[in-house]
Amino acid sequence: MNASVSVPSLFNLRPEAEQAPSSGIVDVFNHARGREGVIPLWVGEGDLPTPAFICDAASRSLAAGETFYTYQRGIPDLRQALARYHERVYGLPSDPERFFVTTGGMPAMQIAMRMVAGNGDDVLIPTPAWPNFVGAVTVAGARPVAVPMVFGQNGWNLDFERLEASVTPRSRAILVNSPANPTGWTATLSDLRALLDFARRHGLWIVADEIYGRFVHDPALAIDGRAPSFRDVMSPEDRILFVQTFSKNWAMTGWRLGWLEAPPALGQVIENLIQYQTSGTPVFVQRGGIAALEDGEDFVAHQIDRARTGREIVGRLADTGYVDLPPPSGAFYAFLKIKGGRTSKEVAMALIEEAKVGLAPGSAFGEAGEGYLRLCYAREASDLEEAVRRIAEALPRIAG
Amino acid sequence: MNASVSVPSLFNLRPEAEQAPSSGIVDVFNHARGREGVIPLWVGEGDLPTPAFICDAASRSLAAGETFYTYQRGIPDLRQALARYHERVYGLPSDPERFFVTTGGMPAMQIAMRMVAGNGDDVLIPTPAWPNFVGAVTVAGARPVAVPMVFGQNGWNLDFERLEASVTPRSRAILVNSPANPTGWTATLSDLRALLDFARRHGLWIVADEIYGRFVHDPALAIDGRAPSFRDVMSPEDRILFVQTFSKNWAMTGWRLGWLEAPPALGQVIENLIQYQTSGTPVFVQRGGIAALEDGEDFVAHQIDRARTGREIVGRLADTGYVDLPPPSGAFYAFLKIKGGRTSKEVAMALIEEAKVGLAPGSAFGEAGEGYLRLCYAREASDLEEAVRRIAEALPRIAG
Repeated sequence: MNASVSVPSLFNLRPEAEQAPSSGIVDVFNHARGREGVIPLWVGEGDLPTPAFICDAASRSLAAGETFYTYQRGIPDLRQALARYHERVYGLPSDPERFFVTTGGMPAMQIAMRMVAGNGDDVLIPTPAWPNFVGAVTVAGARPVAVPMVFGQNGWNLDFERLEASVTPRSRAILVNSPANPTGWTATLSDLRALLDFARRHGLWIVADEIYGRFVHDPALAIDGRAPSFRDVMSPEDRILFVQTFSKNWAMTGWRLGWLEAPPALGQVIENLIQYQTSGTPVFVQRGGIAALEDGEDFVAHQIDRARTGREIVGRLADTGYVDLPPPSGAFYAFLKIKGGRTSKEVAMALIEEAKVGLAPGSAFGEAGEGYLRLCYAREASDLEEAVRRIAEALPRIAG
Repeated sequence: MNASVSVPSLFNLRPEAEQAPSSGIVDVFNHARGREGVIPLWVGEGDLPTPAFICDAASRSLAAGETFYTYQRGIPDLRQALARYHERVYGLPSDPERFFVTTGGMPAMQIAMRMVAGNGDDVLIPTPAWPNFVGAVTVAGARPVAVPMVFGQNGWNLDFERLEASVTPRSRAILVNSPANPTGWTATLSDLRALLDFARRHGLWIVADEIYGRFVHDPALAIDGRAPSFRDVMSPEDRILFVQTFSKNWAMTGWRLGWLEAPPALGQVIENLIQYQTSGTPVFVQRGGIAALEDGEDFVAHQIDRARTGREIVGRLADTGYVDLPPPSGAFYAFLKIKGGRTSKEVAMALIEEAKVGLAPGSAFGEAGEGYLRLCYAREASDLEEAVRRIAEALPRIAG
């Protein structure tokens, strides 16, 4: 997807390291760091800092001296709080032994990959997709296999024929992200059943990224206000690993706190992999996580409301005539299809220069994303209105 | 070293995951968790919580809303503070571009391994050694090759003949830990020159763990109060990766904050690997690190004094006649050679039951550690005196 890094050959690095792609989002983000007046809609985070009640829980823990090594799997209080949270959100009984605390969603993904794929293995990834999926698969030594989704009148959809055609004896897993970053695609129950059937037939692991599960905007899809989940269709013996994070729901991107949900029989393996990855997550950070789970529902509701408002504002870009934008069903991104012949990176750079708005180029999300731009709308309405105004003003010159 | 984990075959996990050994230290630690009255000397951490001025720096950062994504390589303020710290401690100019902030020493080690070794590669490890070295090498898909050190009248020494004999075309790196956990062995300048020459001749990377470098107890070895370092003998073009942590010097084991020091030409590769590992380290945690580096020298001096006192107290165990214990040159561990025929795990378990003192079994540090026990003496003198009294009382029955 992005070129691998070139380092002097005397270093003789491992291919897994050299081939790990630079993030096309971070590239643009770094490019514009420090520029004045740019409205930053490129990164997958909102504009709100973490609520004070969560920060205070961490500070109290620090002041109380919770600064020692702790349980590799996470402190029992947090694992129990996670089980209660899942029971509440998904309406199903849940076991604390299924939850393994990690220092963010990425470490959970990396551990999932280490367990299921390595040298000689393929991992299927419906694209456009968050670039870190390709990164995690590559670092594990496995080969990412992009399976483009189909873009039509109603937005993006899985291409099951192409998924079937992509399976080989090397295939070991499929990464499923719903609601999806960057497209906003949200799997229906029927999609999830079909994916589960596909994985079962071919003996594949499913690595499920449902981190935007609380952000579902199409009422026809929502179940008790959240997106359909593999939990709704799976059996306990299914080989599914859920990677999760506190980042999005509770505005905790900078905390590096997440979890892996897995069959309890994998507990000792996961404990060992955590030991050799980060050796656990700070207790004071975990205390923040407990506060978020136990007292954070009002804040999550506020975040969801804000995202819906943002989605409506950004939807007006379709009226410019220069972009295609079927309303995204979930998550908090608009994935704009730009008319005209310029690459998404050219348009992104031009929008920084001429409109002072930062969007992520679609090419960062795989070849299937070329020609698109990702806009994060988890932001203050006035910022988004100004951004839409500036983009609409600049597009005729840029896209034309 | 330790048996790999057995999981149901239906999960069909990757060998790198299944073969990652359980930590023999964590095993014992978990075994005795929650027991009353056990003096815990098994884990590699002291008994002091993080000083308040470090905790306060983190809490202020949280209150100021530093809760967003940040630089993958670490915030510039911390990288600059690390360069100044190295100039002060090692008396050599240092470049912030050499430093990459990680969420602990283990993530730094894991990234170092990902760069230099993988499937088909060997990594040499002088043993006894911290078990996480074997873990990190295994998870990377490479093969750890234990090269036992020699125990004599004056303690442990490298076996250079055996090191030479262990090199094959598969050899890619050597892990050098000085001052060493668990043995307290501390390399002389002459040892370091010989190791560097060895690595250069065979085209090996050196992964240097000098995290106990401030804890050197043999005045004949000390250079400006710290242990000899590869920095004293290397050239800029040498292929050396330093893995480091805030854990020991500043009592920050639970913070998960460390750094990797590497040639700046590897910067983009390391940035990418951090992106796919943890996606960076919380800014508020990094603020604590800056406080530690800038204002923590009095605390480090206090820690070193305490360790020296602890070393003297623990040294009295040699008088019991049941252990061999040449005074350790560095770090804060005593590695006791137990007389009699029982395994180190048996003795460790018996000491928990009969003396209520928790030591780590030497077998956790590789086969070369069998017959030894590790005792961490970074602890309050009165605790250590009581522990020595209890061990001395119980040893005649246990070791006999």
